[in-house]
Amino acid sequence: MHQSSSSSSLGPGGLDLSQVFFKSIEDTAPDSPIKRHTKISVIGAGNVGMAIAQTILTQDLADELVLVDVNADKLRGEMLDLQHAAAFLPRTKIVADVDYNVTLGSDLCIVTAGARQIPGETRLNLLHRNVALFQLMIPPLAKYSPDTILLIVSNPVDILTYVAWKLSGFPSNRIIGSGTNLDSSRFRFLIADHLDVNAQDVQAYIVGEHGDSSVALWSSISVGGVPVLSFLKKQQIAYEKETLENIHKEVVNSAYEVISLKGYTSWAIGYSVASLAWTLLRDQRRIHPVSVLARGFYGIECGDVFLSLPTQLGRGGVIGVTNVHMNEEETERLQSSAKTISELISQLDL
Amino acid sequence: MHQSSSSSSLGPGGLDLSQVFFKSIEDTAPDSPIKRHTKISVIGAGNVGMAIAQTILTQDLADELVLVDVNADKLRGEMLDLQHAAAFLPRTKIVADVDYNVTLGSDLCIVTAGARQIPGETRLNLLHRNVALFQLMIPPLAKYSPDTILLIVSNPVDILTYVAWKLSGFPSNRIIGSGTNLDSSRFRFLIADHLDVNAQDVQAYIVGEHGDSSVALWSSISVGGVPVLSFLKKQQIAYEKETLENIHKEVVNSAYEVISLKGYTSWAIGYSVASLAWTLLRDQRRIHPVSVLARGFYGIECGDVFLSLPTQLGRGGVIGVTNVHMNEEETERLQSSAKTISELISQLDL
Amino acid sequence: MHQSSSSSSLGPGGLDLSQVFFKSIEDTAPDSPIKRHTKISVIGAGNVGMAIAQTILTQDLADELVLVDVNADKLRGEMLDLQHAAAFLPRTKIVADVDYNVTLGSDLCIVTAGARQIPGETRLNLLHRNVALFQLMIPPLAKYSPDTILLIVSNPVDILTYVAWKLSGFPSNRIIGSGTNLDSSRFRFLIADHLDVNAQDVQAYIVGEHGDSSVALWSSISVGGVPVLSFLKKQQIAYEKETLENIHKEVVNSAYEVISLKGYTSWAIGYSVASLAWTLLRDQRRIHPVSVLARGFYGIECGDVFLSLPTQLGRGGVIGVTNVHMNEEETERLQSSAKTISELISQLDL
Amino acid sequence: MHQSSSSSSLGPGGLDLSQVFFKSIEDTAPDSPIKRHTKISVIGAGNVGMAIAQTILTQDLADELVLVDVNADKLRGEMLDLQHAAAFLPRTKIVADVDYNVTLGSDLCIVTAGARQIPGETRLNLLHRNVALFQLMIPPLAKYSPDTILLIVSNPVDILTYVAWKLSGFPSNRIIGSGTNLDSSRFRFLIADHLDVNAQDVQAYIVGEHGDSSVALWSSISVGGVPVLSFLKKQQIAYEKETLENIHKEVVNSAYEVISLKGYTSWAIGYSVASLAWTLLRDQRRIHPVSVLARGFYGIECGDVFLSLPTQLGRGGVIGVTNVHMNEEETERLQSSAKTISELISQLDL
Repeated sequence: MHQSSSSSSLGPGGLDLSQVFFKSIEDTAPDSPIKRHTKISVIGAGNVGMAIAQTILTQDLADELVLVDVNADKLRGEMLDLQHAAAFLPRTKIVADVDYNVTLGSDLCIVTAGARQIPGETRLNLLHRNVALFQLMIPPLAKYSPDTILLIVSNPVDILTYVAWKLSGFPSNRIIGSGTNLDSSRFRFLIADHLDVNAQDVQAYIVGEHGDSSVALWSSISVGGVPVLSFLKKQQIAYEKETLENIHKEVVNSAYEVISLKGYTSWAIGYSVASLAWTLLRDQRRIHPVSVLARGFYGIECGDVFLSLPTQLGRGGVIGVTNVHMNEEETERLQSSAKTISELISQLDL
Repeated sequence: MHQSSSSSSLGPGGLDLSQVFFKSIEDTAPDSPIKRHTKISVIGAGNVGMAIAQTILTQDLADELVLVDVNADKLRGEMLDLQHAAAFLPRTKIVADVDYNVTLGSDLCIVTAGARQIPGETRLNLLHRNVALFQLMIPPLAKYSPDTILLIVSNPVDILTYVAWKLSGFPSNRIIGSGTNLDSSRFRFLIADHLDVNAQDVQAYIVGEHGDSSVALWSSISVGGVPVLSFLKKQQIAYEKETLENIHKEVVNSAYEVISLKGYTSWAIGYSVASLAWTLLRDQRRIHPVSVLARGFYGIECGDVFLSLPTQLGRGGVIGVTNVHMNEEETERLQSSAKTISELISQLDL
Repeated sequence: MHQSSSSSSLGPGGLDLSQVFFKSIEDTAPDSPIKRHTKISVIGAGNVGMAIAQTILTQDLADELVLVDVNADKLRGEMLDLQHAAAFLPRTKIVADVDYNVTLGSDLCIVTAGARQIPGETRLNLLHRNVALFQLMIPPLAKYSPDTILLIVSNPVDILTYVAWKLSGFPSNRIIGSGTNLDSSRFRFLIADHLDVNAQDVQAYIVGEHGDSSVALWSSISVGGVPVLSFLKKQQIAYEKETLENIHKEVVNSAYEVISLKGYTSWAIGYSVASLAWTLLRDQRRIHPVSVLARGFYGIECGDVFLSLPTQLGRGGVIGVTNVHMNEEETERLQSSAKTISELISQLDL
Repeated sequence: MHQSSSSSSLGPGGLDLSQVFFKSIEDTAPDSPIKRHTKISVIGAGNVGMAIAQTILTQDLADELVLVDVNADKLRGEMLDLQHAAAFLPRTKIVADVDYNVTLGSDLCIVTAGARQIPGETRLNLLHRNVALFQLMIPPLAKYSPDTILLIVSNPVDILTYVAWKLSGFPSNRIIGSGTNLDSSRFRFLIADHLDVNAQDVQAYIVGEHGDSSVALWSSISVGGVPVLSFLKKQQIAYEKETLENIHKEVVNSAYEVISLKGYTSWAIGYSVASLAWTLLRDQRRIHPVSVLARGFYGIECGDVFLSLPTQLGRGGVIGVTNVHMNEEETERLQSSAKTISELISQLDL
């Protein structure tokens, strides 16, 4: 079932009106390929996948946007709903299908599909179900788009990014997890809100595992270029560590809070992932905290784990990891985060 | 319950860090009011309301965006989800509350809240319930923002726009229903898709009642400035009226189709209403098919009805209605549309 | 002399700090090519070329922007001035050189360079000098970017577009002259200004030769989808042909007027050509009046001439010419325009 | 001579076609004022003023853009050239006049006009001529827009910002000089170019006098949130102060270099000032290094001087000055910068 756009006939008797309206000029080379066409595929048309798809569409990043989901009805409904906005947007080809062959030649594949926790289910059991799901999704994505970048959003993101790496056989620079990019944005919002400044003037990272064991890098927070901690120190303003930790806790809780209030998160993850897509496909070389193969950084030696580090991204995927100086405590926390992930990975059969 | 942004304390002992970070310059007039601040309120935080709110936020139209809903949890969840994207967006104040006083001084109020049809309920009964709802919503909106423009999206939109007009006591140029703006966009998409042109190069209107009795203005369709019908005539291409009517039917059905497939419509109505908001608040003087007080146009003399006509919109609301030439059949259909609406209105107690 | 960006050394002793700041992750495929990179070259760094370059930069259309000019100082000054704005713009590589090899692999080459008329010089003599200039520019452009689209802006644009076609050996769908795209924009502005509507709601074309013999297509002007002439007719409003011709005259004169007042034109041609670049490279399939190989259209049979017709453009260049119905007078004028151009072409030695 | 847009008549016999095309709806309150209209005036239509005006127009910041200059021809040419682009831009009213009454009710006045140095002229003499010019410009601006923000771009910018403050009688939070905003952007570009990162990820300020005595704040440079100097220290990488100073020198020289190469600077100052206008009018509360009343900051006690400090800007103008920690050398240089400016000010008769 290939669900392309509609095929209503404006002309009578099968007449193709576009042939009547437009005539080719002479001396045309009709088979000149449409070169350098940017194609993005979003796997999973749930709340997260659709918020990402809509934000990508709005920022006019792709020439072709593909949706894949197992639910054919939902998929077609979402495709039509986006297509109906054509008159308000730059022209983008929007395609949806349950078959992965529609993703052929994608520049970027964003994976949002995942199993939801069944009440009473162990975390490990959920993980096994998600791995099984990835075994169905990743190989066809890799087959149809062998040069694509895989951007994993499904949770637990760090482990599933590792799984996608293994299943795709891709070099690690083309496997990225959305990781703590959104956590860091929430962190920046909370700091900006407190100081009444623009969140874009706040530099602040949360790294490590996306979730409860994430690590806030207090030592590198700056506002308008002013490092906050050393500023406080130089101004001889005492601050309590607990205060800082409360902000971090608020970040960690905010995903839970939104889910408990509205049932899911969508808008912020949509903007967050669309900003990663922009940096990648427009080769912006910006630094984002995303989940990457972390072995060898900051003393992480517990094997192949993916977790979030401040990473420079460009058209080829991961360019490099920023060499942030962490204090001893931050390093220890990061290494402990890595160990937790590593142990979970060791329980997978891959 | 006023739900503003968070109030976590970065500084110790209640110290306001923003006072430490920033110092005022001398000779400041501290009470200079923030002038010419654009404020938009969206009433109803359901799928339609939130798609509108998010699109308005993305296109950076408002300095302040207000959400109102009766469901305090859902409301707070949506507000937080939007706020968490602060680092990816220009700075906008986002506020949410169940109390209408938060809408004070809005430039534009977009009403999306409405009752849903209960299985077996008559259309008239549903309408009575919606009128009751509007009696709770419109008076406080009009009270807190006596100079606002009211943009009604709730269905049945033409009748509820009339109801909003009556309940607000506003002059009619400040009461607009989203009407057939989205229907016309779908119409343009279907024509563009068939001809393989950019939908922005297609001019095509659907007017009249938003719904089954809407009227497609075939005589004024043009593509890239070429009037389609007269083009076909001059090229002596025969076309069957049925073919054209099929496209119109597809437009009428597409809302039903999206709802049956995904359960609701959201993205297209979001872009559609955001484009109206842009034209209104940025005084673009563009022409949109929206629901306005129609008495006196095209021979509509059956009393005060609102239905969609090609209307020029600007900062003050409705500037004027475009004097499109309709053929006899189109005029008759429009007048019949008006009569249907008028009869429903006469059954309301207002 | 390749003028790339600066090479100041932040690190000591030739240390490459970017190697210290960023570390590669393991299992990286370091030679993965940066694919689907969009490159635009602008030939001629005068007022027109620079207004085009700056507008393209602002709308974030290219990953790499190349400037070529014979004046190395001016060229470097313009490159630096654009580069200094990096902090305010998405990241774009900006390169400038007097050597055409810098244009290697361009997706679009925009030619703005041309000789200026010497007082007392005949039009034909000026043309010969410009042909000589094109003989230096077009072959290297075609050699370094054999798949590029050539967009000619230099005047007389219709003849020089023909010259570029001959010198490049390219199929005609990849040779486009900016033609009457700007004249049509001025036409739309004057009509919109008179009616106090948004110029984007006005559809109006000027076709034929860019210059004194251009043809205004009155029969296809529409405002908000309402055809103006048939509207006036149906409303039984008498209008004098002279009135319409005055607006056309004002369009023809406006380029002269701007040149006489400020010495050159720049902003409008910058936006106009940037909009063509957008339609071409983002495959927008929009309709623009641009100069294309016109033989076979509207009875033009006087040989190979380029002149402006409403043309659908996309990633491959010209898709087709819109089959507008012209009245007899308009057709005659267009054919006469074609003959004038054809005679000039016959005097060239190509 | 008020130069508004054209008044060509499309209709016959003085018939106002817009009255025929559009008809008002009933019950309209025709005199509802167009509220919250954003108006920006640019004084001086030279290369700098026009680059600013065009960038503001492109980013769709103003509902009305006003140009004022003493050269009526140049002024009208620039206005027409911008107006001709109407079809490519959101609708903005563009007005130009030699009379200041056209600036009535501006939200922001950007002053770019200034006298140029005559060969052999002393700096002080040039300054006196510019003060004389400001005596003609500032009082009428203040009279017609008593609530406006004055943004001074003319050079020497720090002294002329002081002059504008004195002549306007405005509170100091509504007087801002573009100062080192552009110098800082050049600084960020050079650092980003060296490290091959996105300039938007570089935080770096140049403060003090705009010009030779400006002060680079090395201690607060960070890249992607990583403070560069302390990073180098912790990595035990030796660096020579001379290396850093060379980058600063390159920034100071780059304006001279661009001027010597192309005769003037335009693009970068255009983007730079447009970004200030955006922060101010859209109340973005971002931090920019701009020229403000500096008494009382960093030990500057030599009287009322304006020089650049990292300043938070919003709709009301200056919100506050960021309390950056400077080392002793930086503080001394800043104070010395202040003294130089103060001495020049003392020689003015104001």
